[in-house]
Amino acid sequence: MYDPKTARYPSFAQARPNFADGSDTPRALLERALENLDRLEPQVRAFVSFDAAAARRSADASSARWRAGAALSDVDGLPVGIKDCFDVRGFPTRANSAYFAGAPAAATDAAHVDALRRGGAVIVGKTVTTELTMAAPGPTWNPWDLTRTPGGSSSGSAAAVAAGMLPIATGSQVRGSVIRPASICGVIGMKPTFGALNRYGGIDPSPSINHLGLLGGTLADVWSVAHHIANVAGGDPGVVPHFAGRDLPAARRPRRLARQYTAGWQHTDAASREAFENYVRALAQTGIEIVEPDASPELRAYEDATASVPQWFFDLMLWEIRWPMLAWREERPDAFSETMRGYIDRAAELLPADYERACIARERLRARHRALAAAVDGFVTLAHIGPGQIGQPATGTPWYNDASSAIGAPTLNLPVLAVDGLPVGVQLMGFEHGDADLAAMGRALLTTAASPTTGTSPE
Amino acid sequence: MYDPKTARYPSFAQARPNFADGSDTPRALLERALENLDRLEPQVRAFVSFDAAAARRSADASSARWRAGAALSDVDGLPVGIKDCFDVRGFPTRANSAYFAGAPAAATDAAHVDALRRGGAVIVGKTVTTELTMAAPGPTWNPWDLTRTPGGSSSGSAAAVAAGMLPIATGSQVRGSVIRPASICGVIGMKPTFGALNRYGGIDPSPSINHLGLLGGTLADVWSVAHHIANVAGGDPGVVPHFAGRDLPAARRPRRLARQYTAGWQHTDAASREAFENYVRALAQTGIEIVEPDASPELRAYEDATASVPQWFFDLMLWEIRWPMLAWREERPDAFSETMRGYIDRAAELLPADYERACIARERLRARHRALAAAVDGFVTLAHIGPGQIGQPATGTPWYNDASSAIGAPTLNLPVLAVDGLPVGVQLMGFEHGDADLAAMGRALLTTAASPTTGTSPE
Repeated sequence: MYDPKTARYPSFAQARPNFADGSDTPRALLERALENLDRLEPQVRAFVSFDAAAARRSADASSARWRAGAALSDVDGLPVGIKDCFDVRGFPTRANSAYFAGAPAAATDAAHVDALRRGGAVIVGKTVTTELTMAAPGPTWNPWDLTRTPGGSSSGSAAAVAAGMLPIATGSQVRGSVIRPASICGVIGMKPTFGALNRYGGIDPSPSINHLGLLGGTLADVWSVAHHIANVAGGDPGVVPHFAGRDLPAARRPRRLARQYTAGWQHTDAASREAFENYVRALAQTGIEIVEPDASPELRAYEDATASVPQWFFDLMLWEIRWPMLAWREERPDAFSETMRGYIDRAAELLPADYERACIARERLRARHRALAAAVDGFVTLAHIGPGQIGQPATGTPWYNDASSAIGAPTLNLPVLAVDGLPVGVQLMGFEHGDADLAAMGRALLTTAASPTTGTSPE
Repeated sequence: MYDPKTARYPSFAQARPNFADGSDTPRALLERALENLDRLEPQVRAFVSFDAAAARRSADASSARWRAGAALSDVDGLPVGIKDCFDVRGFPTRANSAYFAGAPAAATDAAHVDALRRGGAVIVGKTVTTELTMAAPGPTWNPWDLTRTPGGSSSGSAAAVAAGMLPIATGSQVRGSVIRPASICGVIGMKPTFGALNRYGGIDPSPSINHLGLLGGTLADVWSVAHHIANVAGGDPGVVPHFAGRDLPAARRPRRLARQYTAGWQHTDAASREAFENYVRALAQTGIEIVEPDASPELRAYEDATASVPQWFFDLMLWEIRWPMLAWREERPDAFSETMRGYIDRAAELLPADYERACIARERLRARHRALAAAVDGFVTLAHIGPGQIGQPATGTPWYNDASSAIGAPTLNLPVLAVDGLPVGVQLMGFEHGDADLAAMGRALLTTAASPTTGTSPE
């Protein structure tokens, strides 16, 4: 029986070479995924809805293409789940919101779903998110411990991958919604450079911060999907994505990483602190120079600036939901949770000057971050303050994720630590448009100094 | 009977001071507008749909607020038309496209419509656009000569204002869709800095170039609406708008304007060239230094770069319609005009590298433009190659508008020239986020050296 503590995550990249001679097929791979789905979904509840029959038809068509040497792309036959804030043709988009309880089926796929479908990927279903990706948790539980939160807001995507139901699923992140559940569920999380993967087509809160991201069992599959989306759907309009090369870049060990504390460290439990300290020490032993914030005035100023992000992040995030959510709340006041109503009420009180101040603070933080590119190759922190908490009162805390979300720099969750047998991720952040560099470094960090939480090699 | 050649455009700013004592009322102002609408709309066909009864109710409520000293904003009671690519609650959004022929009524107002409604503005109806704001012309004719095009794609908005049916209407511009119909219909057109007015909520082709803009009878009303939208709906997410001050900035004559030729001059008819030469000469006589492209290597390089915009503009514009229009076209091939199918087919063939080249060309042009801020206060060209052509085979040519659209710099159409009794506009372009500066200069240009086409003072 599948158990994330002992099983290997399914790897599409490893299965793919066997599709041509029929020794494996997309249909067989789908069946292995559906087996886990059938058994675990009643407890995990990762999906809002799925259509196994349609997925099987789609996988059969893919199997035939591979046999005929006519695969549409590197993701042909890849089973994928789509976070339920994005449009999938034939499914309603509900985002765990009562406001959208009666929403009709979407007529057109979101940009990235359209790209995946054109490449032959098998759209299995829609995964659970929190209310409007911001507030009330969905019904999903953590496959590592069914009494714990899977993290959010990309809760179902992270849980489905951790439960071996899918090799990969899509997510979105305004604050911590890809990296956090990836950390808590022990899977790879990729929040690319802001705009590098086209996020259009769906419910899009806080558009100047909202990223399309990916959650996968292996970095190779995550790369493959990012490369495909970037080349078919592009990035957000106006952004040129950088995912060159069909295959995951070769591992490249960073020379120098800045260690960050952010507002998260003070909230981190002792065991997770210790696990991270050990990990950083192990990195240093492989020859990577770990730079503390006090190593230079520039690093110190940057560290202080990231720790103060929560002071202005809400003004940025909430000003951008005034429209359309204020109108939605007025139209149907009872369709929102108390948390969500609180957000909208706070948004309603914001003034343009509040937003301007937040935008200026973000620009200053970005400038400090860019200026460090000559000094370090990237930044390393925890991805979350510890394992997912017991129960579902919330889906985790954002402090470790505020900075990279606000800056828009690419970030990976690397599932390399375990605390009490539960996953805790390491967050590796690079520089804007350095998505390929970050993947190369992430690959190196997965294969050196790793103490993987799972039996799998998440490379 | 209303005739744009002799009538004054209705001015809301002039009427507003009389609302408090009841010597004029929003309802009376609306009735004057509806009188023109009732008489001219059967020939002009500016509207897709309008709801006079709802507008009257809304104007009555506004009249009561003004009388009670409880006006909601400076636009309380302002009759406004909304281009039919933006969502208006209760109306379908069709954008002259057969694909949207059966679209249901929108549930939520677009961001700027929501802001206007919150301010008490009277939403009169939806104005005609070209197919998806890009292709087949709608049924609208030019109020100055009912055998001619009104320009496009904001055809109905320009025509409704020119016909005195509305003091102001909203438009959108990817390439020339605000400035061009404003020129051809002899009204004020404002394409603000890219993103300065929130364009969200509706059909949004080419999102990295698509601007929300305004078409109005007077610059004062245009300013008032821009100020209101900017302060309630903000700009596009991530952009901080600069429309400080409730009233139109004081006129400020530019010291130095760069004259531009672009790809448009070679296509401009002799009479329009002569009118523009005379206008530029008149500007010079008021003490404004007019700088020709050969005055400096930087200006020459910028002029050459603007003339070559058409070489890459299509790659930029069409890559960004691949999603969702390729899917739409596949779903319902017959729902698109031949022109639109041609655009979509061309979009389908583009590669990410084509888009990257176009983005780089745009960045270079922006850099050249920004660097000129120390040398000149703005740029002056014609807004269109001449009066609107006879018939409706197309809605005008874009060459004079390519540069400012691609750069994202704020631009005004000033309706100050007449050729054969038909309006031709002067285009004044400023620098990014210098919207208030541009308005101050535009005001000065309207009141000095003006040979207005209409009996009105469009200030």
